[in-house]
Amino acid sequence: PWTPIHGEPYRSVPYRPERMSEAQSLAHAAELRTRMRERRTVRQFAPDPVPPQVVRDAIACAATAPSGAHQQPWTFVLVQDPEVRRLIREAAEHEERVSYDGRLGEEWLAALRPLGTDEVKPHLTDAPALVVVFQQRYWLGEDGTKHKHYYVDESVGIAVGMLLSALHLSGLAALIHTPSPMRFLSQVLGRPENEKAFAVIPVGYPAPDCQVPDLVRKSLDQVLVEV
Amino acid sequence: PWTPIHGEPYRSVPYRPERMSEAQSLAHAAELRTRMRERRTVRQFAPDPVPPQVVRDAIACAATAPSGAHQQPWTFVLVQDPEVRRLIREAAEHEERVSYDGRLGEEWLAALRPLGTDEVKPHLTDAPALVVVFQQRYWLGEDGTKHKHYYVDESVGIAVGMLLSALHLSGLAALIHTPSPMRFLSQVLGRPENEKAFAVIPVGYPAPDCQVPDLVRKSLDQVLVEV
Ligand SMILES: N[C@@H](Cc1ccc(O)c(I)c1)C(=O)O
Ligand SMILES: N[C@@H](Cc1ccc(O)c(I)c1)C(=O)O
Repeated sequence: PWTPIHGEPYRSVPYRPERMSEAQSLAHAAELRTRMRERRTVRQFAPDPVPPQVVRDAIACAATAPSGAHQQPWTFVLVQDPEVRRLIREAAEHEERVSYDGRLGEEWLAALRPLGTDEVKPHLTDAPALVVVFQQRYWLGEDGTKHKHYYVDESVGIAVGMLLSALHLSGLAALIHTPSPMRFLSQVLGRPENEKAFAVIPVGYPAPDCQVPDLVRKSLDQVLVEV
Repeated sequence: PWTPIHGEPYRSVPYRPERMSEAQSLAHAAELRTRMRERRTVRQFAPDPVPPQVVRDAIACAATAPSGAHQQPWTFVLVQDPEVRRLIREAAEHEERVSYDGRLGEEWLAALRPLGTDEVKPHLTDAPALVVVFQQRYWLGEDGTKHKHYYVDESVGIAVGMLLSALHLSGLAALIHTPSPMRFLSQVLGRPENEKAFAVIPVGYPAPDCQVPDLVRKSLDQVLVEV
């Protein structure tokens, strides 16, 4: 297991991964591009259980992410207990009601309109598993000193991107849900004060009658500039 | 191609992905866990070219990421031009010299010590390609009105996680480099004022004598809590 490395001297090891052939590399990239394009954010889940080991393995993938100063400032809470999911839904819907009733403001509500979201969050109890991601804003040394973590948002975002890739490539659907404010998540899940919720990710299979917003993605030439 | 959807009504389409068998799902997840674990951040690159289409496909994977209000607030600049890479290296090393000479402060320098990093950044010119990721803090309507983007850091972080997954699974090594401050990147690359650099990602093959810091990752039970 990992132990804190703050202040330790640099020690190095050789890194000699086998080089993939160009043909293989091109084939993998093209295949991933096709498969990733099939991912959609799902808000209507079937109640069917998912294999928990798939979710654990996807979390293990996320935990390989690079992070500022290799601090790995993340905790993943995998919630399957129906009663805890019920509590999370209740608290989330309470916050969302306030948000949709005006806290978001006109411009934000207009931005959300094409998504068709509202304050009712059945996915929080229909999906068989929730992954609640926490970011550790700092860490506490043995003697109680607070140490800053660096690039926390970036690091945790990257880890979540790896999580979503792994879940999708393993056949599970997900939703990045950011009820806001998210403090209730720390309370319901009893997380320590150095941790702050980043997102709640319901994981499962799309409901048989699942609908998604009729959205288009930017094409590659709308997001890529070559120099 | 995508056009702005701000304020448009909700329209939906069915989402009916084929369901993967449990056995397949478990096999894919286990395989991804093994492959992702082999990724390391690389700082010593071979000068060998990479197939540009692999990098383009990986960027296309990144651009499938979910984003706040589906605003897709990202631009990826793929830099292969040696002169532009030289300019980026020069400006980055200038900033890094100031950082390592004291701007970072004692605690931050102690956090970086085990990584063995310093102000010399040969990877910026040795790696055959740089992907410079920009986040769009807001967008400008036709009439010049600024519209806020939501959850920009989170969305771009997730996209970068998908990018790193795709690059690694396609056989290419990378480094997330965050020279700071990063404004010089907007200048060198002529990016508009609504964009802010998120990271510079050198992409290539590890040098034959590549060394990496002798780091250990947190084990799954150090990052996962089950409820
Ligand atoms: N940006 C500097 C310092 C640096 C390096 C690694 C790292 O994880 C963090 I946080 C900061 C540099 O690139 O050297
Ligand atoms: N958190 C609210 C509102 C919401 C929803 C989607 C979205 O992309 C954004 I930005 C905000 C909710 O979850 O409904």
